Parts: sequence; structure tokens; C-alpha cells
Amino acid sequence: MIYIQRKETFCAAHKLWNEKWDHDTNLEIFGKCANPNYHGHNFELLVTVKGEIDPDTGFVMNLFDLKKIIKEHITEKIDHKNLNLDVDFMAGKLTSSENLAVAIWDILQPLIASRGATLHSVKLAETNNNIIEYFG
Amino acid sequence: MIYIQRKETFCAAHKLWNEKWDHDTNLEIFGKCANPNYHGHNFELLVTVKGEIDPDTGFVMNLFDLKKIIKEHITEKIDHKNLNLDVDFMAGKLTSSENLAVAIWDILQPLIASRGATLHSVKLAETNNNIIEYFG
Amino acid sequence: MIYIQRKETFCAAHKLWNEKWDHDTNLEIFGKCANPNYHGHNFELLVTVKGEIDPDTGFVMNLFDLKKIIKEHITEKIDHKNLNLDVDFMAGKLTSSENLAVAIWDILQPLIASRGATLHSVKLAETNNNIIEYFG
Amino acid sequence: MIYIQRKETFCAAHKLWNEKWDHDTNLEIFGKCANPNYHGHNFELLVTVKGEIDPDTGFVMNLFDLKKIIKEHITEKIDHKNLNLDVDFMAGKLTSSENLAVAIWDILQPLIASRGATLHSVKLAETNNNIIEYFG
Amino acid sequence: MIYIQRKETFCAAHKLWNEKWDHDTNLEIFGKCANPNYHGHNFELLVTVKGEIDPDTGFVMNLFDLKKIIKEHITEKIDHKNLNLDVDFMAGKLTSSENLAVAIWDILQPLIASRGATLHSVKLAETNNNIIEYFG
Amino acid sequence: MIYIQRKETFCAAHKLWNEKWDHDTNLEIFGKCANPNYHGHNFELLVTVKGEIDPDTGFVMNLFDLKKIIKEHITEKIDHKNLNLDVDFMAGKLTSSENLAVAIWDILQPLIASRGATLHSVKLAETNNNIIEYFG
Repeated sequence: MIYIQRKETFCAAHKLWNEKWDHDTNLEIFGKCANPNYHGHNFELLVTVKGEIDPDTGFVMNLFDLKKIIKEHITEKIDHKNLNLDVDFMAGKLTSSENLAVAIWDILQPLIASRGATLHSVKLAETNNNIIEYFG
Repeated sequence: MIYIQRKETFCAAHKLWNEKWDHDTNLEIFGKCANPNYHGHNFELLVTVKGEIDPDTGFVMNLFDLKKIIKEHITEKIDHKNLNLDVDFMAGKLTSSENLAVAIWDILQPLIASRGATLHSVKLAETNNNIIEYFG
Repeated sequence: MIYIQRKETFCAAHKLWNEKWDHDTNLEIFGKCANPNYHGHNFELLVTVKGEIDPDTGFVMNLFDLKKIIKEHITEKIDHKNLNLDVDFMAGKLTSSENLAVAIWDILQPLIASRGATLHSVKLAETNNNIIEYFG
Repeated sequence: MIYIQRKETFCAAHKLWNEKWDHDTNLEIFGKCANPNYHGHNFELLVTVKGEIDPDTGFVMNLFDLKKIIKEHITEKIDHKNLNLDVDFMAGKLTSSENLAVAIWDILQPLIASRGATLHSVKLAETNNNIIEYFG
Repeated sequence: MIYIQRKETFCAAHKLWNEKWDHDTNLEIFGKCANPNYHGHNFELLVTVKGEIDPDTGFVMNLFDLKKIIKEHITEKIDHKNLNLDVDFMAGKLTSSENLAVAIWDILQPLIASRGATLHSVKLAETNNNIIEYFG
Repeated sequence: MIYIQRKETFCAAHKLWNEKWDHDTNLEIFGKCANPNYHGHNFELLVTVKGEIDPDTGFVMNLFDLKKIIKEHITEKIDHKNLNLDVDFMAGKLTSSENLAVAIWDILQPLIASRGATLHSVKLAETNNNIIEYFG
């Protein structure tokens, strides 16, 4: 069993806002992340996949294929977008990095399983100092 | 003469959009940066100041003072904000990093001059790969 | 269950020195890290916490709260300090990064538990090339 | 139980090529990595070792000793070399990072065990975006 | 006048070898960089262009256009290649980063001039520690 | 004319303290950098040298020679040392990064001139956010 990782980046706007709460409660809980007109980040996404090494290729899974899957299903839908307004798989959800990591897991897990490998974790760095990791 | 640099970061949303142009022209010129609902970045701001070393302190200017000036006059006004909607000194301007670097220069230059040092450059990294520098 | 990480930095002096040993043995075992007048590092501290996502906030725990706990209980006590002389929770201990990571764990673990989350690991990078991680 | 990590780098040429396949199949499977005249990388190698802290040193194992073992047995044999042509422990193997990580594990595991510690993982970053980790 | 920078990366093999010298002299002068079977690097290329800001776009030159020029004329020709054997514009030249930076300048300078901007410098990092910059 | 850069790192303790001032004035001016028992940093030193390319080597100056000069004359004297107590060329000086950069320039300038090249600048990063550059 070996683990392979592919890092991708995307630039997106979002705000943290709970529609059930009034303006002051949102500001109290989410602080500057609740700015009504949004703010944004250069997110780093690190996807870890595990499996056996194929003796013919030396690969668990070609990292170019993993890159293509992530681009087609994830980053093309969120790069240079607003996570609160533009992204179908975040509709109706709080756009915390925690929720985004879970949503990315739910999309990638079956796609990677169908290629004979296993998704191990989805890691999202919102900034260099704030990082989330989800293992399913 | 010696040069000192202070790096600060801020997270902001913006879009590139010229009000004089129609929707299609904006998309043609600015590509995905014209997404109507905004996108965002973790910007890195590097401010370079030059001057003589004060023999009593070993400093051109205390880097903690430079940090305070940048925080009070720049990053507190743009961090976790929308550059198109929330920032007084960008009102009516295209929010390219080029224009933002010039606006930051115009604010910092007299503040640093009043402390006996000279602003040398303002550098803005929108991503690791796209960087702007302005020397006045 | 999801994992969140907060990175903080601090700048400290220390030396590796075992009081039970003579000067030559300390130099033999600890090499240049035993310099009697100390040396120093920009340490990076990465704290990982795990828990369930709160549906109202999208958070395991607000990363701003985690930042505040780390600052108040750890970095304010060791930043710009001498680990051998100035830090109460390292008194009488060898100031290896291993021992420092364990001491930080012992302070943070109950504080994080009292907020309904679980400390997962404390990671300390002394330099880019020398890194320690403790899981309790 | 505590985990320690040492990072080393090496610069090597390689190509991905399966001798059982013809030219076109190699290009189809390995893409630009199959360039017949080789390409190269600045590889980053991160070795993680675990064990108990020795109360006399505050160490699991002196990181300078770990550095020496890695240099003598691994990086001196692969730094500024061609992985397909110059490295005895890769002879006859596809030079994927996956296979290289396994080969490095097989060399380091007994050497670290003989010093009373346990090899936990071997991580290889071929680029910032393509990373492999092997846990034995 | 404002300066814009675009960073690209490429992975290439090379060796330093002067055909006028014998084997021992090459090894004496170039050390491990003269390994006959090549070694390689993840090179970072930073291209700096200067010009006036266009008031309609807020740009000196669209960074996407600069990216395209660099990709088409430089990185597609050297990425995953052998600088000694595969690259027409390095034919017959010692493949030092100094010579490569000059060759890249000679290609990019007229292309950028034809778009109304001015090439300011070409910077090449062979590793994090060895960097070259050419200003024409 | 081409510019070459070599990056080295060193880990040192220091404090900012003016012997002419009393304790309170030192704390007021230098803040936490005046901690009497010292603090420390992983300093990054970037040395830039300029000259003509030698057609036989493709080099301005062999970067391995530049590395050796920096190690022998600078980093071996300050790495894992206390800048206030252990370093002859800082004796009697305030150990600001500004003063350290000037002192390093004064040592390196004649050594590099004697090899037919020209020292262009000495850059010191005390942390990622606080950087000094001296051009002589």
C-alpha cells in the first residue's frame, strides 16, 4: 500500500454567514469572515489516494489522471468563483473549509474508487495558517 | 543607505470589470477574473523602505513601526474586504493589482517620508505566480 | 470527524545541555547545539484538533479561538524568549523540540477538551529540515 | 512515542520507461515523463522515525545521526545522478517515485532499527504538486 | 512605469560539460554537475516586464498573455527535456543557468517589445539556493 | 553582466540592546527584541554577485566557490552562535540585521573582488516578514 498526493490551487470568494441568524450574531460568531460583500483566498487543495503499485507502470494511479479528475470535477467549478453563489455542490451550505472539504470528498471518492484506488484524505489550506483535513 | 522590507498578507475578494464595456467584452479581456460574483486571493504585500542606519538603534526605521503603519493605513482597510465595493481608496478604479499597488504607494509614501525614511517600492503577489512591483 | 490545523510561529533562543554531564560530553552529544551562549530558531508550531462539524457554524472549533488559546497559553510565553531560562513550563527540562512538543501537548490538551474538541497532534519545526510531531 | 522528521534534497535525472513496451505505448502511458533523453527534478525526501524520548538527551534519535545515515546510504548515491543508469538499488526497476520510495524504505528500515528506533514513513516530493508516501 | 512578474516552472535534465576539455578537467571544474549521464532540476523561471498601466485594463500587459508567450516559446520546449540534447536554442552551448537565462532573454525580448512592453529581467532558480538573474 | 545568487541559512541567538541606555529605554525602543536572556532566528542570507559570463564555464563564478567563501568566512562563524557574545566581527555593535548585513558585506566584498567578480548585495531575512538588503 502506498500513498500519492496531488496539490491543486484555486482562487475563490466566500463569506461565512448563517441565514438563520441575524446580522449581529453572524458578525459575533464569524468575525471578519462574515463581511457581507465577501472576501477571498488562494486555496490549496491536497488530495491523497492510496493503493497498490502496478508493476507495469510503477504507479498506484497516474498522477496526471488524478490531476485531470480534480480539475474536471472540482477546480474548474470553484476556481475564480464565489463559493456562496456560483457552486452547485455548495448550494444551501455554509461555505466553511470544513464543509467544502467534505463536499469535495463526496465527489472524488466514487470517481477514484472506479479507477481501482482509494481516496485517503482531502486537505484544504485556506491560508498558510488555517488548514482542514477530512478522511471520510 | 540600506533597504528594509516588511511583508504583510490580506485576504480579499475582487473582480476585474470595466464599466465602460459590455458583458462580453469584459469576459473577453479579463477572462475568469471577470466572474460577476467575484473571486478572491490571499495577497502578499511587500513594502521596501530605504534610509541611513541610525547608530543608536541599528535601524533605518523600526520594523514594528513600519508594520503598524501598514496595518493601520492599508491592511485593516482591505483585509477580508471586497476591493470593488468596500475600499474607499479603490472607489471608481479597476481593481487590478497594478492599480492597487499604485494606490498603496500613494498612501504610504508621505507617511514614511514624515518619519525620515524613503519608500522604495510596493510589491503585491496576487498568487505565487502573478506579482506586481511599483517604484513610484 | 474532521481535522483542523492552526500554524503559529515563535522566535526563541535555547541550547541543548545536560547538567549531569561535563562540558566535553555535552559537546560530543549535542554538537553545535550545545553552544554555551545559546543559539536560536524561528520555530513553526502546527496544532491539529479533531471533532465533529457543528452544523450551525460549519466548524469543529473556530480557528480564531484555537489561535487565541495557542497565543495566550503558548506563544506569548515562549516568543522572543530563552527556552532554558525564561519559560516556566520548561524549567528543569532539556529544551529539545521533542520535550517542548510534549510540554505544549500537556498544556493544550485539557484546554481543547474543555471546548468539546480533541487535540490530535503537536508538530514543531525547528528548521525546515528538522521536525517533531507528538500525538499524546 | 514521538515522531521525528528529517528533510533532505537531491537533484536527479530519470525517465519513466517500461522496456516491455514499444515506444508509442511508453509515450501513451507516461506522456512527457517518457522523454528518451531524460528530464529531472529537485526531489525532496522526508524521512519519519518514531520511538521513545531518551531522558538523557531529550531525543528519540539525534537528528544529526539520522541526517548522516540518509546522506551516506541514500542521497550520496542519487544526488546529481541518473536514476535509470547510475543507481545500483534502482537497477532493473521503473524509476517512478513510488518505486524509489519503496527502495529507500528497504535500505533505511534496518539501519534505523539497529539504532533502537523505528522507521515510520518515507515521503518523496518530485515537484511541489506530486508527492508519494510509503509506510512499509 | 510598473513591473509585472510571471513565474513558471519546468523540469529538465542537463550536465555541465565543456567539449574542449578532457574528462578529468570537466570533473575538476564542474564537480558533480558533470555527471556523464546527466542530473536534473525543477527550475523556476521568473520573467519581469515593465511598462505603463493601460487605463482601460489596469494592466501593463495581461499576465495571461505573458504566461502564454512563456509557455509557447520557452517552457514547452524545455519542460521534461534534456537541455544538452533536446533544445534547439541551447545547441552547442554549455547548459549553465547563466547561458540558459541569456538564451531565454534573447527569445522573449522581441516578443514582449512587439506587444508594447519592455522585458526587464529573466531570473532562473536551479534550486532554492542557486539563482541567476539577467537584465539584458 | 549577469547576477548570481547563493542562499545560505544560519541559526543564531541575539538581543537588541544599547549599552548607553537604561533597561526601560531599551525595552521601550526594542520591545520584545530586548529580552535580556536573548531570543533567536533561522536567518536566511542571500548573497548576490555580478560579472561577465566566462565562455569556458558558462559561469560568472562557480556557485560552489561562492558557497565555500560564504561558509568559511560567514556562516561557520555565526551559525549556532550568539551574535552578541560569540562573533568577533559584531563585537561592540548593536546586533540588528542592518548592522549584520553591513558587516557581512565588508567581509565578502574584497574576497569576491579578488576572484574577479563584484559583490552586488547582501540580503538577510530574520523572519519571512522582516528582511534587510544592503548594496554597499
